[in-house]
Amino acid sequence: MTTAAPEQWQARFERLRSNKAFEILVIAIILVSALVIGVKTYPLPEGVTQAIIVLDWGITFFFMAELSVRLMAEPVKRRFFRDPWNVFDTLIVVVSLIPIEDSDLALIGRLVRIFRVLRMVSIIPELRTLLNSLLAAMPQLAYVLLMMFIIFYIYAAVGSTFFASINPELWGDIAISMLTLFRVMTFEDWTDVMYETMAVYPLSWTFYLSFIFLSAFAFLNMIIGIVVNVLEEEHQRQAKVDAEAAGEPDMLALQAEIRAVRALLEARLPARHQQPAE
Amino acid sequence: MTTAAPEQWQARFERLRSNKAFEILVIAIILVSALVIGVKTYPLPEGVTQAIIVLDWGITFFFMAELSVRLMAEPVKRRFFRDPWNVFDTLIVVVSLIPIEDSDLALIGRLVRIFRVLRMVSIIPELRTLLNSLLAAMPQLAYVLLMMFIIFYIYAAVGSTFFASINPELWGDIAISMLTLFRVMTFEDWTDVMYETMAVYPLSWTFYLSFIFLSAFAFLNMIIGIVVNVLEEEHQRQAKVDAEAAGEPDMLALQAEIRAVRALLEARLPARHQQPAE
Amino acid sequence: MTTAAPEQWQARFERLRSNKAFEILVIAIILVSALVIGVKTYPLPEGVTQAIIVLDWGITFFFMAELSVRLMAEPVKRRFFRDPWNVFDTLIVVVSLIPIEDSDLALIGRLVRIFRVLRMVSIIPELRTLLNSLLAAMPQLAYVLLMMFIIFYIYAAVGSTFFASINPELWGDIAISMLTLFRVMTFEDWTDVMYETMAVYPLSWTFYLSFIFLSAFAFLNMIIGIVVNVLEEEHQRQAKVDAEAAGEPDMLALQAEIRAVRALLEARLPARHQQPAE
Amino acid sequence: MTTAAPEQWQARFERLRSNKAFEILVIAIILVSALVIGVKTYPLPEGVTQAIIVLDWGITFFFMAELSVRLMAEPVKRRFFRDPWNVFDTLIVVVSLIPIEDSDLALIGRLVRIFRVLRMVSIIPELRTLLNSLLAAMPQLAYVLLMMFIIFYIYAAVGSTFFASINPELWGDIAISMLTLFRVMTFEDWTDVMYETMAVYPLSWTFYLSFIFLSAFAFLNMIIGIVVNVLEEEHQRQAKVDAEAAGEPDMLALQAEIRAVRALLEARLPARHQQPAE
Repeated sequence: MTTAAPEQWQARFERLRSNKAFEILVIAIILVSALVIGVKTYPLPEGVTQAIIVLDWGITFFFMAELSVRLMAEPVKRRFFRDPWNVFDTLIVVVSLIPIEDSDLALIGRLVRIFRVLRMVSIIPELRTLLNSLLAAMPQLAYVLLMMFIIFYIYAAVGSTFFASINPELWGDIAISMLTLFRVMTFEDWTDVMYETMAVYPLSWTFYLSFIFLSAFAFLNMIIGIVVNVLEEEHQRQAKVDAEAAGEPDMLALQAEIRAVRALLEARLPARHQQPAE
Repeated sequence: MTTAAPEQWQARFERLRSNKAFEILVIAIILVSALVIGVKTYPLPEGVTQAIIVLDWGITFFFMAELSVRLMAEPVKRRFFRDPWNVFDTLIVVVSLIPIEDSDLALIGRLVRIFRVLRMVSIIPELRTLLNSLLAAMPQLAYVLLMMFIIFYIYAAVGSTFFASINPELWGDIAISMLTLFRVMTFEDWTDVMYETMAVYPLSWTFYLSFIFLSAFAFLNMIIGIVVNVLEEEHQRQAKVDAEAAGEPDMLALQAEIRAVRALLEARLPARHQQPAE
Repeated sequence: MTTAAPEQWQARFERLRSNKAFEILVIAIILVSALVIGVKTYPLPEGVTQAIIVLDWGITFFFMAELSVRLMAEPVKRRFFRDPWNVFDTLIVVVSLIPIEDSDLALIGRLVRIFRVLRMVSIIPELRTLLNSLLAAMPQLAYVLLMMFIIFYIYAAVGSTFFASINPELWGDIAISMLTLFRVMTFEDWTDVMYETMAVYPLSWTFYLSFIFLSAFAFLNMIIGIVVNVLEEEHQRQAKVDAEAAGEPDMLALQAEIRAVRALLEARLPARHQQPAE
Repeated sequence: MTTAAPEQWQARFERLRSNKAFEILVIAIILVSALVIGVKTYPLPEGVTQAIIVLDWGITFFFMAELSVRLMAEPVKRRFFRDPWNVFDTLIVVVSLIPIEDSDLALIGRLVRIFRVLRMVSIIPELRTLLNSLLAAMPQLAYVLLMMFIIFYIYAAVGSTFFASINPELWGDIAISMLTLFRVMTFEDWTDVMYETMAVYPLSWTFYLSFIFLSAFAFLNMIIGIVVNVLEEEHQRQAKVDAEAAGEPDMLALQAEIRAVRALLEARLPARHQQPAE
């Protein structure tokens, strides 16, 4: 058996990685691992539990192999870990490999196995794009989120100042008050919360109504922010597509044509003062 | 009685099918069948029940006749069953014809009679268009729905891992957990679910809040996807209407006009170097 | 006292009707009548009740006088009752004039007095515009509403067929079932409704989830319909404003200019075959 | 120590005010004051309470100093109080300075300290812009809000007329009825309210359903109003950016070019009737 040069190996792994059948196999194994996670939440006979443990280790080793292939396929190894998805995949595999018997750590082991389902996002390009577009919208919303946090914080401070003695479970401290306000914002039994404080402070409905209006307004602003953003991108993309698809000349082309006519005139028609000389 | 050629019969049925009065009669009979379905949910005296059974068979036979007319009106019979609405109509009629006495099958018989109301959609073109546009939007949403399913699946797996022992009715297995999460997403008594688990895991509010944010965001993305799609189609339709309605020439027409001027110049004005020869 | 000609009287009333002070007085009286309606819902001492009865008659007579002025101001009397708002105003005044002692009719008298507040809409032009734009959007939504009604009707028929024996108060007949489904659509304690039927039919969650998805989708479609409609009008209005504001020539104007150049060329440059003759 | 001229002092304060480090210090102190407010809602040992009182006074004096700097930095002192944010900041500081021992006033003192968090909005320009854009949208919504108020008022009057005897806590007078209707609008246990009145008036579901449709429609109108407004601004901004970015000539420029060609023709081509004379 002849030993191939490292570049040859790398090229072979690269071919394997971009092989359609390999991709489908990986997605299938991720689906199997998702099914295993679901099945484990049901009461199972002993035999099935044993089979699942074996299957689980099989999945872990397959993922390890797949990760190795993708690492080998990378010409510059360091670049591999610059992609956060690769780091995520590696972590999932490495933690799965640790043999854990302790009940507390076993829970973490189970969680890690659940997060394997997220590999679906890392493997299907369309889902990656979707997630990236969600993350891209985030920074623009930062100030609206900050504004919303300030509204929540002020109302929670006022709420726990006045209502803590009425119902400490809802208004005991500022953290619990913020949770209660989030509940009010989702309209979940918010009148029960309100009627309770109105028994002591009859005007406290102003507190709830002003909060609902302010948070609804801020929320609306956030949605509009996203919509406008999306439409803007859409608009630009559309404008390009329109122009190209229709094969229509743009204003610049028309201007060039008019100038060509003019140049022709200038060239072939002598200036007036030369005409008498003709 | 002279026997008409098959083509003649087909033409006659076609005329009958596209007859306005025939269409209105069909819609009226569908409305009657809808009314019968509604009336049957009330307690009725014996006489009315008997009358309804007769009416029901009458409707079934009318539908059979109407279907036959439409089948006869089709020049190529095989094409008739290519339209899914025709298949649906045939199924409804055929199942209605089976005489069922058994109580279990009788229920299916009642269901089939209820689905007759859907014939309203198959008969009114505007409703067909509406439904088709809904279905057309579906494939584009496939990836967002997949993303949402992954979010639900992961949270349901985490939820049934941690909370199954707290309330098995809500978190017993992954299927029930997904239903509970859908309930949380609709904000229906979601704080009751949360407070119950917070008694055991005080930090479990992070589970619910992160889920609400993620699912709301994915949902928002879905809506925006539909809106952008609709606006895009609207935009293209509008652009066409605008241009045609105004009777304005487009850029291509203007370009043609400028080129005509240029051609005229080329033809009637001799090139400069020829002028001395004049 | 000289008797003026009818035309003179009509002109005087027209001047009075369009008088700013008169308009403000009418709005003020409507506000007073709204306040009276609000005050009457509180327990009142005898003296105030008496004062309100007097005030109430005063308002009725003022409205009668105002209506007469507006009727007199109309050059062609028949046209007055073509405006539905005038018919509404007249009805309100006429019914208020009927002296009613009977307790049942007295309730109708109170209701008519409440509807006086709606005169605010008939008197403020901006509110009329708003209401008209709402009504104008209606016909376009007719098919979506019909589709939604069909969905409700089918689900209600299925619901009362299967669940009537489980809880007749929610699913007893098709009318009550539709109300229950509206409740489910607003997510109001919908899980209570669902868990109750799931105890008998474990798969009945499919009934609720499919209904929620279908109705949400139809509802979304309705909203998008309105939004697209509004944006379209906006788009057309904007396009006009844009063009006019910028003082830019449109494509037609450009085309005319190019044709003028061409006509000039045709006129002043002889055709080629004539040139040798020169 | 030499005494600087007032203008010199003013310039020095202006430089201090616009100093980046000074700004960051102010934001840090506001953050500390927000933290203090949050911490105070928890049960604290005596030592910490003492430390917080000292810290609180420290913050008050820092705010006073900062305000003085900003007042000094203003060339024309009167202009300082024209900015509502400056008035707000001054009020917050002045009220914090009043030493209050009385329990009732102490509550106001605590509230004022909570409102210090709002200074975050006055200090961060992006948040000010956000708030201003919210306020700018308000006047346009005035008529929709008025319409909504009229709807609420009429339904509340009808509700308290019919349902006051059924449940005075929900329908006792017009004010409480409006609060109940707001609850119905948020779908919060609205069926409980409805079933209660349906026991007496079986048709009262029409009251609730019509109210939900009307208020939802008015609400939708409001949202669309905001969206259209935002998109319009966006559209105008975009149109400008588009034109400038592409460097495309506009219609006016093209018109000018065509006219230049025509002028050239007029100048160099003699009119027809002159040609024979040539």
